[in-house]
Amino acid sequence: AVPLSYGLLIFPGFEVLDAAGPIELLNVLSVYMGHNEIQLSVIAATLDVVTPALRGPDVPGHRFAGKQHYLPTHTFDTAPALDVLIVPGGVGTFKPAEKIGPMVEFIRNVYNGSLGNPPLQYVFSICTGSRLFAEAGILRGHKATTNKQGWKSVTKLTDKTHWVAKARWVASGNIWTTSGVTAGMDGMVALIAQIYGDEKAEALCDMVEHSRQKDPENDPFA
Amino acid sequence: AVPLSYGLLIFPGFEVLDAAGPIELLNVLSVYMGHNEIQLSVIAATLDVVTPALRGPDVPGHRFAGKQHYLPTHTFDTAPALDVLIVPGGVGTFKPAEKIGPMVEFIRNVYNGSLGNPPLQYVFSICTGSRLFAEAGILRGHKATTNKQGWKSVTKLTDKTHWVAKARWVASGNIWTTSGVTAGMDGMVALIAQIYGDEKAEALCDMVEHSRQKDPENDPFA
Repeated sequence: AVPLSYGLLIFPGFEVLDAAGPIELLNVLSVYMGHNEIQLSVIAATLDVVTPALRGPDVPGHRFAGKQHYLPTHTFDTAPALDVLIVPGGVGTFKPAEKIGPMVEFIRNVYNGSLGNPPLQYVFSICTGSRLFAEAGILRGHKATTNKQGWKSVTKLTDKTHWVAKARWVASGNIWTTSGVTAGMDGMVALIAQIYGDEKAEALCDMVEHSRQKDPENDPFA
Repeated sequence: AVPLSYGLLIFPGFEVLDAAGPIELLNVLSVYMGHNEIQLSVIAATLDVVTPALRGPDVPGHRFAGKQHYLPTHTFDTAPALDVLIVPGGVGTFKPAEKIGPMVEFIRNVYNGSLGNPPLQYVFSICTGSRLFAEAGILRGHKATTNKQGWKSVTKLTDKTHWVAKARWVASGNIWTTSGVTAGMDGMVALIAQIYGDEKAEALCDMVEHSRQKDPENDPFA
C-alpha cells in the first residue's frame, strides 16, 4: 500500500536542512500535488521546544541556531502507527548513550513494529541520522551510507554492514540512508519516484527548481 | 562592518526550504565555523505558532504541512536592529493586502531604517519573497528575480524594475533576490562569499555536501 503516515524525528542538535530538504519535497507532494491524504507526525522525546545544530553538550542559548524553535506534535509514547520514519543527523546524534538511548529504542521499535503496530514500510536517514540506525542495530546485513564528516565514528558502530563511501544515497531493502545534508533531497526524490512514480518526482523537482540527481553513485564529495 | 544581526521573517504559508536552505548555511557558519557572534531573530506578526506551505486562505489543519510548528522569537514591534533580513516565499505571500500589509510595512521600514534603527546592510529574498519586496516598493530602479511558478503575478507588481528571468540569484546594490526554493542556497553561498570570503563559502559547501553554483546566470529552470 502507498504510505500514508510519515514521521519526522527531531532532537536537540538536529541539522536543519537534513530535515527540511525531504520535508519540503513531501510538502510539495501533499500541498500542491494532490496527495493531501498523507499525514505527518513530528516526534521527539518530549513536547518541549527543539532547537537544531547546537555544538557541545548543552548550549541552548546559542545566539543563532538556538533561536530556531520547533514544536513536536508527538512523543515516543504518543506517536501514531507510521509507514515511513525520517531521521535527520546533526551533532545531536553524537550525544552520550543515555541521551540518545530513547531515540535509538524508538527507532528499533517502530522499524520492527514491536509497539503493537506493523513494521515500517521505509526508514530514511539523512547525514549522521544513520548513526542512530547503527545504534539501533537495524543496519546488520544491509548496505548503508552516511556523511563524510562523521564517516569513521559512524561506520565503526556496526559489523556486517556494507558501508558505501561514494553514494548520494543507498537503498537497501526498506532501509534508505543518504550522505551529508543536501543528499537528503536527492535520496527523497528517488524514494518519491519509487513510491509515486517518476513523472511526479520530475514535476516536483521542477516546482522547487532542484537539479535532480538520478545516479546515486554520482557523489562529488566522496 | 560585517553584519552581526540577522532576521528571518516567517508567516503562515511560508515555503519551508526557502527559509531552511539559507538558514542551514548560516547555522554552519555560526555553529561550526567560529562566527558565533552573529545572531538570529525569527520575526513574525505575532508570537503564535507559524505553519508553512499551506494552500488556500486558511487551512491550519492540513495533515502534513500543518503539523510543522515554528515559534518566532520576535514580532514586528519587538524585533531588534537588523543588518540582514531574509524573506522566504510561499503561498503566504499571495494573501490579500490586509493580511500581508503588516509584513510589507515591516520590510519597508527595516530596509529604509525608519524605525529609529539604521538601514539594512542587505535584504535577501527567496522565491516569491520578492513579491513582498515589490509590494514594499523597494525594487524600483533595481534588478531582481523570482521563481518561475509565480513569475507573472510577481513581476507585474512593479514598474522601473528590471526582472531577470534566467538567474539563480540577482544582486542589485544591497537587494538580493533569488529564484525558486533551492536557488536560495546558491544565492546565500554567494552572499556569504562576498561577506566572509570565498574560502569560507567553499568550506561551507563542502560541509553540507552542496554542489556550489558560482554563475548566477546558470539557471537550468529558466
